[in-house]
Amino acid sequence: MDKILSYIDSNIGSFTEQLKDFLRIPSISTNPDNRGDVRKCAQYVEERMKEVGLENVMIFDTPLHPIVFGEWLHAGGDKPTILIYGHYDVQPVDPIDLWTDPPFEPVIKDGKIFARGAVDDKGQVFLQLKSIEAHMKNNGALPVNVKFIVEGEEEIGSVNLEKFIIDHKDLLKCDYVVVSDTSMFGKGIPSICYGLRGLAYMQINVTGPNRDLHSGSYGGGVDNPINALAHIISKLKDDKGKILIDGFYDDVIDMTSEERDEYSKLPFDEIKYKEGLDIDEVFGEEGYSTLERVSARPTLDCNGIWGGFSGEGAKTVLPSKAGAKVSMRLVPNQHPEKIEKLFEKYVMKIAPKSVKVEVKSLHGGMGALTPLDSPAMKAAVSAMEMAYGARPLFTREGGSIPVVNVFQTILNAPTILLGFGLPDENPHSPDEHFDLENFHKGIKTCAHYLNELSKINMKNNGKN
Amino acid sequence: MDKILSYIDSNIGSFTEQLKDFLRIPSISTNPDNRGDVRKCAQYVEERMKEVGLENVMIFDTPLHPIVFGEWLHAGGDKPTILIYGHYDVQPVDPIDLWTDPPFEPVIKDGKIFARGAVDDKGQVFLQLKSIEAHMKNNGALPVNVKFIVEGEEEIGSVNLEKFIIDHKDLLKCDYVVVSDTSMFGKGIPSICYGLRGLAYMQINVTGPNRDLHSGSYGGGVDNPINALAHIISKLKDDKGKILIDGFYDDVIDMTSEERDEYSKLPFDEIKYKEGLDIDEVFGEEGYSTLERVSARPTLDCNGIWGGFSGEGAKTVLPSKAGAKVSMRLVPNQHPEKIEKLFEKYVMKIAPKSVKVEVKSLHGGMGALTPLDSPAMKAAVSAMEMAYGARPLFTREGGSIPVVNVFQTILNAPTILLGFGLPDENPHSPDEHFDLENFHKGIKTCAHYLNELSKINMKNNGKN
Repeated sequence: MDKILSYIDSNIGSFTEQLKDFLRIPSISTNPDNRGDVRKCAQYVEERMKEVGLENVMIFDTPLHPIVFGEWLHAGGDKPTILIYGHYDVQPVDPIDLWTDPPFEPVIKDGKIFARGAVDDKGQVFLQLKSIEAHMKNNGALPVNVKFIVEGEEEIGSVNLEKFIIDHKDLLKCDYVVVSDTSMFGKGIPSICYGLRGLAYMQINVTGPNRDLHSGSYGGGVDNPINALAHIISKLKDDKGKILIDGFYDDVIDMTSEERDEYSKLPFDEIKYKEGLDIDEVFGEEGYSTLERVSARPTLDCNGIWGGFSGEGAKTVLPSKAGAKVSMRLVPNQHPEKIEKLFEKYVMKIAPKSVKVEVKSLHGGMGALTPLDSPAMKAAVSAMEMAYGARPLFTREGGSIPVVNVFQTILNAPTILLGFGLPDENPHSPDEHFDLENFHKGIKTCAHYLNELSKINMKNNGKN
Repeated sequence: MDKILSYIDSNIGSFTEQLKDFLRIPSISTNPDNRGDVRKCAQYVEERMKEVGLENVMIFDTPLHPIVFGEWLHAGGDKPTILIYGHYDVQPVDPIDLWTDPPFEPVIKDGKIFARGAVDDKGQVFLQLKSIEAHMKNNGALPVNVKFIVEGEEEIGSVNLEKFIIDHKDLLKCDYVVVSDTSMFGKGIPSICYGLRGLAYMQINVTGPNRDLHSGSYGGGVDNPINALAHIISKLKDDKGKILIDGFYDDVIDMTSEERDEYSKLPFDEIKYKEGLDIDEVFGEEGYSTLERVSARPTLDCNGIWGGFSGEGAKTVLPSKAGAKVSMRLVPNQHPEKIEKLFEKYVMKIAPKSVKVEVKSLHGGMGALTPLDSPAMKAAVSAMEMAYGARPLFTREGGSIPVVNVFQTILNAPTILLGFGLPDENPHSPDEHFDLENFHKGIKTCAHYLNELSKINMKNNGKN
């Protein structure tokens, strides 16, 4: 391992430069105008996979954005086969005017690299690639069998990935899945995420009159779709953040008291948290700590709202239409399809009869929990401890990686979430960035991880 | 009058063509990009005033958009002096994609002229100009003294007009003000509007965290400004449309029983009203008819709302900011300044403490009522009856012309609202249009009106 680690140390500068090229491609999967860029980005990943020594590298087309695949399978049948997963697509960039530098012109400041996709997830895909390169360049081989899949639709719900995995079950067959798309607990506090929340993302469309009206001539005669929508949204949660949808909490498994004890040991400074966000008060469900609420409790948030006139000045319009995007973060055992139905039923129940209301489901995914005592998890703890010099803590993440559940279900493989982001790196907002120390230690962790995993004897049914 | 009326009949085709030129100028007062167009439009009005024979025609600059003035004062001191008021600015055009034809390329279909500003208010300013032309071309004189003022800021609350009127009190001194910016009751049902609602137009800005956040990582920890805003809006009115702001109804003078009797005689088909708007139910304050609610009762409507992601697809953002425009239609005796204060106080009272809320007043104006028995009103009834062959009904209008109150207060002159629009001509929405029969009869009504007004002997203190 020494040769490998010093290779990483001496090349970290050029690795960072190479990452910039990856970040320059505006691979926004939700925007039809960027479709060509997304494909260009897939080709970029294809080239890098070939470069680091993966074999059978190919691009699979889907109805929308392509999936890139590569593998190296010469470690032997007694060694584990891992499937590394990541995504090369990124979130949209609006509000664009709040970016300090252009989102697709990466810059390095204060030991951080700023660009859309820096931490979510290009930087983390790249460090996995470089850990493979470090092994291949120095040993001409990898210590375990590796399959690597990088998709282009994660930010729009991985719409074509599930079918791809079902259709290519043999190609993707593996013992463990490794995903680097999560955060550590904080700077200098390595941690491993053992749980993810699920998601049900909905849209509510409200139609009042069949055209925009003069609010003077019609105000008082016709219901207003914005007022009606506000009325609906205000009844989704109570004043304390408790979700009021009938049956919403039915399948929630509460945290165990051991889990809550562990959670209470995590360092968390609520005053700094509030200062960092410039808020006077935290907000959410009573009876749970802030850390519990953002990761182990289900939530509901409006992600967008629109209707009528939003320009400068005053337009006296009574609009025809209004709409909102509303998403719910689910905990493991809450099924998105069921929650979508409960949401729609409840919204239709509370909707005023004086407007027309339509509810659509935009996408969803199950939450996931990975057993803390699995050998692949133990190997991850060792690898991280070697790279960071500190034993990692265990956390749960509030975000969703629906694909983790798909891997669990279809490939019957547990997922290890080896994340190197930090909580304040703005993955979905302006000035997204990635800490370069974690980029460096991330490559080392992944290099160690391949080595630690090779100690698991698969002949022995995965028990080392 | 015969000569004058046949002049109008034989020139109505070319009047309509000339109106198109006026409508082609995109004089959107609220949009800074159109500032040059607004000035061009003022110059267009200036030229037309000179053309029809007005004197001392000039453009007065204001801090924003210019005011055009002209006069003809040779009718003699025993004749009334009227001040005709209109506006040459127009509403914005969005949503632009809902227009059948481009908003500034006027087209004639089914006896209607379609363009932004057709009825509100360019078509109505133009018919006043043409009634003056008809008198001047045929008699070389007008039967009464006329002053004509056309402003460019009506759609943004006539922000500089009040100061202009105060500064030019002598120039504008008059016995009556005539405004053509309202609607008749319906096609073939001439009516005169004797009352207008006032307006208080507000904006609510809500700030949650200091930046857009990932809704997975922060959802459950931080209040969401969209949810908070919906919560605020939902508490402004109850489910029946009654406004909940403390003290809001304190100054409302209820309709007299005579007024309500008159109102009940107005032809109104609620089934057709609902069909025309494609709504299943009307909506509003209990205990009042729809006609009463849209004209003689105060109301509250959201005119716009925004926040977070409103594009295609799903962005899992917990936004930093959200906002809404909310306007209240007031009845005479409700003071906008007082209502603005009550609104702000109430919003601050109900606002969740977990977000920052700012309330701004964008503009406001008093409502107005004109006595039915004033000689200028009686002359208007006669003029309209002559042009339309039917005695006009009396109505109140739900919209606001704040300047009417300014004329009442500063010039001490009652306003006659001689409107030729129809209720379904979309003054603030796509496909705005103006009925050409009313354009034609409107010119005739105004020509008659000048004549009828000349029967009032001002030496006799305005009693004829």
